[in-house]
Amino acid sequence: MPAPTIPESTCDVLIVGAGPAGLMTAAWMARCGINARIVDKRGNKIFAGQADGLQCRSLEIFDSFGFAHRAWREANHMMEVCMWNPDEKGVIKRSDRVPDTPPGISRFTECVLHQGRIERFFLDHMKEYSNIEVERGVLPESLEVDEKVVDDNSAYPITVKLHHLSDEEATPVQSGSDISDGLFRSNLSADDTDELIRKSSGREGSSEILRAKYMVGCDGAHSWTRRQLGFELEGEATDYIWGVLDVVPITDFPDIRNRCIIHSADEGSLMVIPRERGLVRLYIQLKEVIPDASGRADRSKITPELIIKAAQRIISPYKLTYDYCEWWTGYQIGQRVGKNFDLHQRIFLAGDAVHTHSPKAGQGMNVSMADAFNLGWKIASVVKCRSPRSILKTYQSERRRIAQDLIDFDHKFSRLFSGRPAKDILDTEGISMDEFKQTFRTAHMFTSGLSVDYGASMLIAKAGSSADQGDGTDVSATKTATKQVVGKQQLATNAALGKRFPSFKVLNQADSRPWHLAERLPSDGRWRIILFAGNVLAPAQQERVQKFCAALDASGSWLRRITPADQKIDSVVEILTVHSAPRWDVELLRDFPELLHPFDAKRGWDYMKVYVDDDSYHEGHSHAYENYGVDVEKGCVVVLRPDQYVGYIGELEDVDDLAAYFGGFLLDAR
Amino acid sequence: MPAPTIPESTCDVLIVGAGPAGLMTAAWMARCGINARIVDKRGNKIFAGQADGLQCRSLEIFDSFGFAHRAWREANHMMEVCMWNPDEKGVIKRSDRVPDTPPGISRFTECVLHQGRIERFFLDHMKEYSNIEVERGVLPESLEVDEKVVDDNSAYPITVKLHHLSDEEATPVQSGSDISDGLFRSNLSADDTDELIRKSSGREGSSEILRAKYMVGCDGAHSWTRRQLGFELEGEATDYIWGVLDVVPITDFPDIRNRCIIHSADEGSLMVIPRERGLVRLYIQLKEVIPDASGRADRSKITPELIIKAAQRIISPYKLTYDYCEWWTGYQIGQRVGKNFDLHQRIFLAGDAVHTHSPKAGQGMNVSMADAFNLGWKIASVVKCRSPRSILKTYQSERRRIAQDLIDFDHKFSRLFSGRPAKDILDTEGISMDEFKQTFRTAHMFTSGLSVDYGASMLIAKAGSSADQGDGTDVSATKTATKQVVGKQQLATNAALGKRFPSFKVLNQADSRPWHLAERLPSDGRWRIILFAGNVLAPAQQERVQKFCAALDASGSWLRRITPADQKIDSVVEILTVHSAPRWDVELLRDFPELLHPFDAKRGWDYMKVYVDDDSYHEGHSHAYENYGVDVEKGCVVVLRPDQYVGYIGELEDVDDLAAYFGGFLLDAR
Repeated sequence: MPAPTIPESTCDVLIVGAGPAGLMTAAWMARCGINARIVDKRGNKIFAGQADGLQCRSLEIFDSFGFAHRAWREANHMMEVCMWNPDEKGVIKRSDRVPDTPPGISRFTECVLHQGRIERFFLDHMKEYSNIEVERGVLPESLEVDEKVVDDNSAYPITVKLHHLSDEEATPVQSGSDISDGLFRSNLSADDTDELIRKSSGREGSSEILRAKYMVGCDGAHSWTRRQLGFELEGEATDYIWGVLDVVPITDFPDIRNRCIIHSADEGSLMVIPRERGLVRLYIQLKEVIPDASGRADRSKITPELIIKAAQRIISPYKLTYDYCEWWTGYQIGQRVGKNFDLHQRIFLAGDAVHTHSPKAGQGMNVSMADAFNLGWKIASVVKCRSPRSILKTYQSERRRIAQDLIDFDHKFSRLFSGRPAKDILDTEGISMDEFKQTFRTAHMFTSGLSVDYGASMLIAKAGSSADQGDGTDVSATKTATKQVVGKQQLATNAALGKRFPSFKVLNQADSRPWHLAERLPSDGRWRIILFAGNVLAPAQQERVQKFCAALDASGSWLRRITPADQKIDSVVEILTVHSAPRWDVELLRDFPELLHPFDAKRGWDYMKVYVDDDSYHEGHSHAYENYGVDVEKGCVVVLRPDQYVGYIGELEDVDDLAAYFGGFLLDAR
Repeated sequence: MPAPTIPESTCDVLIVGAGPAGLMTAAWMARCGINARIVDKRGNKIFAGQADGLQCRSLEIFDSFGFAHRAWREANHMMEVCMWNPDEKGVIKRSDRVPDTPPGISRFTECVLHQGRIERFFLDHMKEYSNIEVERGVLPESLEVDEKVVDDNSAYPITVKLHHLSDEEATPVQSGSDISDGLFRSNLSADDTDELIRKSSGREGSSEILRAKYMVGCDGAHSWTRRQLGFELEGEATDYIWGVLDVVPITDFPDIRNRCIIHSADEGSLMVIPRERGLVRLYIQLKEVIPDASGRADRSKITPELIIKAAQRIISPYKLTYDYCEWWTGYQIGQRVGKNFDLHQRIFLAGDAVHTHSPKAGQGMNVSMADAFNLGWKIASVVKCRSPRSILKTYQSERRRIAQDLIDFDHKFSRLFSGRPAKDILDTEGISMDEFKQTFRTAHMFTSGLSVDYGASMLIAKAGSSADQGDGTDVSATKTATKQVVGKQQLATNAALGKRFPSFKVLNQADSRPWHLAERLPSDGRWRIILFAGNVLAPAQQERVQKFCAALDASGSWLRRITPADQKIDSVVEILTVHSAPRWDVELLRDFPELLHPFDAKRGWDYMKVYVDDDSYHEGHSHAYENYGVDVEKGCVVVLRPDQYVGYIGELEDVDDLAAYFGGFLLDAR
């Protein structure tokens, strides 16, 4: 037991680490009104360097929180990838140009902006929606879990002793150069958490005891949280050492503002990532830095001078220098993934704490944020007693599978990237440039973040085994519900069950303004029913819509049961309607049941819930029904999770299936 | 002479009034690095009501300052206008639907956001670029002009005594209701400036003497500045009295989220302007409030209750009430325009200070900002000694003509709006609804702000008389230059001389990112040459481009003469290139003279100056050459003023014309 003089407090959720995964978790807590705390051992936030690539899905997620426009405006939009390979004389030549983002997959394209700005957007967002603030220079020192009460959702089984560091302790010493370097965060450096704990012990006045219901370890590759849980990462390191430079380049290389992958004949490989403010990030293979017998390279050998010289040899005959360097680091390529993503569904690991890989595919920050984006709303829903604790198992089931796919991809990609190009077809030790190109192209969907396809579970009404489709964890619907509901994929052929709902433009019925449907799906913790109402002017279809609404609106219906009595009918599950009749022939108040545009005594009818697939004045016709693969006359019902993944699809008559599906993870509130 | 105890200071530009016109002027000063002060007699900024409509051109201007995205995001985008007229039984019916913004005229559409937010964007922008801050509760008390030195650009001929008000003095008393009302700013109220001056006199310790080179009076319809100058407004008031309500309406009227113009049979007219946050602005004709013998209506009769009752009668048989009212006011329709817009080109009037009209066409705030947008860069250019004082005459020449057009339009529009609909063709006292509809439709281009077409002058290389094409002022090129250059309109048929340069998307040559060309034209005080370089891969065309650049780049060329020796070659006039050769076949460093992508020892080559009209990966082909009406092979040269209006068009060989044109308004710097 802690000494009684130490202050004690409680919170619902403790987040350890304020990088992208931690901040994403905190953003959910802010939006869902959860009593959460977030601590970080570092005394200040990042001002340069670190991760920088934003994949399409991350921008979509930012948009669901309402700040994608800030990233989109400041970021460099990467459009084109150029491949440079040795010609027959061994001189690098541009061999191919491909789009960086496959056209048509998202309303965003991949773009590049440094991590510090992205963290700023999260911090501003948290401030707008909550009182949650990052507590910097605060270090967890010990962790205890009371296993007896882990299944009691109202209990606080987690006890953490937090240590408030001095400013000096919380600010890491850099390499001595006046250029920011990231080696202290690199995997070539030992972690300093234990040293920080040792140094600061004995100053009990700056400690506190915190009891929490849930805890999320977002504390990076050296995760202190993971070590307390005794969880292992499985995988391996390679001998490939790479350097990273963020510079404003002075060069006659023609593609310096395109993303480039340069394989030199004998000097190694180089990746060019053009960035904001004229900066370019260079990933440079360091062939002369070799790991020792222990498998670890000597980080003291790595300097900006060594890195730029390696780059100059690779990019020759073009010239490359710089006057301004903003940041640099070095790292050793390796791939590892955690066996366990949680303890008793009480303590979770997210991001680098549970999977590590090379940064060149731009996946690190994105996948870390995606972990937390998957987890946060689930914890919030359980804390608010809307969902049973069982939904929390889907976190490991869904995200560990993604992490496994990621490291498999990275393993292949980084070996193809770091290998020497084959001189000819007989050069079997070399890397086939055709194979590299093919891998790169097919990897595009993967790296966009849009190929994520969650398997069958209580949350995803797919056929088949949840264990097979996930990481082996059993999260099947039959564990929580009386039957396994299977959605009717054929009713919305381009809104795949388990994948994020794609977005097309629709017009607001009331004012004809075009919206990307995704813009109407903010991440506020609510589930959504997209009622594709079809041609509501056809009498038979109008009757189907009326019956569907009557079933949901009836006294004692599942929708009324799961909605707290003192809250609005759209507070847990929101219904958005998209119909296909001509907008000019339809009247909102005449043609749609009030459930679809609820009345409020102070605000009148809700004009933001009914949309139409029709011609717009300024942006043409988006043909949303056709693009979603939904029948224009008959429509269908699509259910979206709070994270915009498709959970269920059915006919308007399938109200029993709908009730059974929601019954698997939403609890009665009244 | 002031008492010697009063502190004295100087500034280049004094701006009186911190409404939209004053803030627009201040934004230019901030961007151009001018030593300016801006004072406002009110102690606090606007939080509700006032102007709200943003026309396309205003959004384009905001974008040139870099904050259109903030307005665009927060505003309600109005798409559709619905006309409601009495049917044969006298019951209102929807008779027509038209787009609110004519499709294709701008990358923005008209939208609605309250003035307070727009002022916030300006304030944030000024903070980002300068130390200029609005000094609130500061009132000018006396004005003297030393006419002997008005022609000496380095002199400070203006002396203003400023009075710092107490908080109590600076905060106007409202009507006593707890709802914000705007009557104290309405034209139904007497101005309180004189009373404020009288009350605060005798407290000399809070006064100061400011000497300024230039002064801009943006102090509204009761302009103190205008009165000091003794300038008259010409025009007339009408008997039409209107009320305004900003409410969240509770109504079964089907078009409450569309812009509506409702002419009732006998109860007057109503305009519906749907706004942000569920608000709707209602402009309501008050038929029972009648001006007295003096021509002025009794404002004490106007209350929210009176206004909503009038609205209810007009909108019947539909119901209309509200629970929440954010703001309300009343006004009397009238149209007036100033005879003089400046005194000695030293003191200028902008916005309501020099033209007043009814608010329903959404022109007030927009035209006021457009005045200041026309003026600010001219004053900055003169203060920086880049241009002769003679360019300042073009302010009155250009903007008084616009003001005259505006009040002519408003005179016609507001009479059609406020009149009773004709019952039939024999009802000659009634207003023809067909005539109203026709006027409304043809007025759309006018109200978008995009029909503005400045006449021939030293700044606009058009044929003909500047006096005839403007307001009568002689601002002809021959007053400043050896000859009148006339641009070759036929070379760019859709970039009309005197109108704002339209915007189409082009790709950055270096990275293929699509940009609206207008996004590369920030309002930073620079002139721009758009070099439509044509097909640079054709040897003859390549030679034309080389010769054009050689002429501009030569030692002693006009471009070098007007550019200060210690500044970059693009600091006064920036050259942006748009070529039409296939992007993949062109190399920036090989195919374009360095003048078109200048080298910097610290930053390398400039990759943001050369663009191409080619297919993009994600947004198709914009066909910019075709849209601008420029020959794809041979191109042309287009010159844009700092406010993005087209000043000159010529062949690549017309370097003498180009030099003569610029010689008319830019002074040698070395």
